[in-house]
Amino acid sequence: MSLAPWRSLVARALHRNRSNAHSRYLQLATVKPNGRPANRTIVFRDYLEDSDTLAFTTDARSAKAEQIERYPWGEACWYFTGSREQFRLSGPLKLVTAQTTEAALAEARKMIWGSLSERARQQFTWPEPDAPKANRSAFEQPAPPADEPAEQYCLLTLEPQEVIHLELKGDPQNRTAYVLIDAGWQSEAVNP
Amino acid sequence: MSLAPWRSLVARALHRNRSNAHSRYLQLATVKPNGRPANRTIVFRDYLEDSDTLAFTTDARSAKAEQIERYPWGEACWYFTGSREQFRLSGPLKLVTAQTTEAALAEARKMIWGSLSERARQQFTWPEPDAPKANRSAFEQPAPPADEPAEQYCLLTLEPQEVIHLELKGDPQNRTAYVLIDAGWQSEAVNP
Repeated sequence: MSLAPWRSLVARALHRNRSNAHSRYLQLATVKPNGRPANRTIVFRDYLEDSDTLAFTTDARSAKAEQIERYPWGEACWYFTGSREQFRLSGPLKLVTAQTTEAALAEARKMIWGSLSERARQQFTWPEPDAPKANRSAFEQPAPPADEPAEQYCLLTLEPQEVIHLELKGDPQNRTAYVLIDAGWQSEAVNP
Repeated sequence: MSLAPWRSLVARALHRNRSNAHSRYLQLATVKPNGRPANRTIVFRDYLEDSDTLAFTTDARSAKAEQIERYPWGEACWYFTGSREQFRLSGPLKLVTAQTTEAALAEARKMIWGSLSERARQQFTWPEPDAPKANRSAFEQPAPPADEPAEQYCLLTLEPQEVIHLELKGDPQNRTAYVLIDAGWQSEAVNP
């Protein structure tokens, strides 16, 4: 397959900002069951194989997992502090859980699990997120092994349908909108 | 008035991260008229006087201005890259326009305008945001003076009702939830 036209720009941004660990952090907006927006930082893990779909991880017990089951659409805002550029990526979200049977997704879930640090894997053994803080001992279970995904661990995917790239450098700033129409990407330079 | 209990934590984060210009950037999630989430980077300007209300600026012609008129609620995600901590601030949004008559808000709109850089003021003379890119000459009008707010310029306010503070440092991470109930803030340590 050919990659979406914004892919090379994200790759360039990741390269230019590679000295910052936080360059893989972005903010994901979702909609709560009460209709209000929610927003939090998540970590970009990789693209799904042969696709432009972004992969993240989350805990099945987290508020965002429930939000996504109820309203599977998100907009990620990815700001690169070094190169001063922003990508807004909007599209359907999907939760890939321990129960997901679709082979490629179940395989991707395992692959990404295997790439997580021990500390990241351990977090899936922690007690219920957002519940009153548990005792320290509740956070001391060993991490599940790299070849055995925790039951609570989910892969979270975002398949962009629209991407807006903004470069703060430039006079005026450069803003380009990319839209997926009939499986083809169209792009247009727009006013910032 | 007494400040909200999370105010000193935001102040500390701003201080600790003061060497990063981007420490005043945060991501604001809103809901579009079609019910989908939107998310973009905005700049924290200040608090409104004698309040815990955050102030930002926007252009009356921007998509977010329309979204906020239709659905005036937002969640800001403010991640500090140096101290590795996140604030999620959720609450009603308000657009303060050239037509706003409420004296304190109209005054705050003028005050913040006066604090903007010449370059920031000039952006309000630029052509319609998101329209096909105009010629360079359309971006060359002089900035309006610091004592005459542009017609399109709006103050945007967020009055937090709930704030969640997460420190990535710490083992386990520290997460504290603050909720405004009957004009008083309650806080609770919760599981990350």
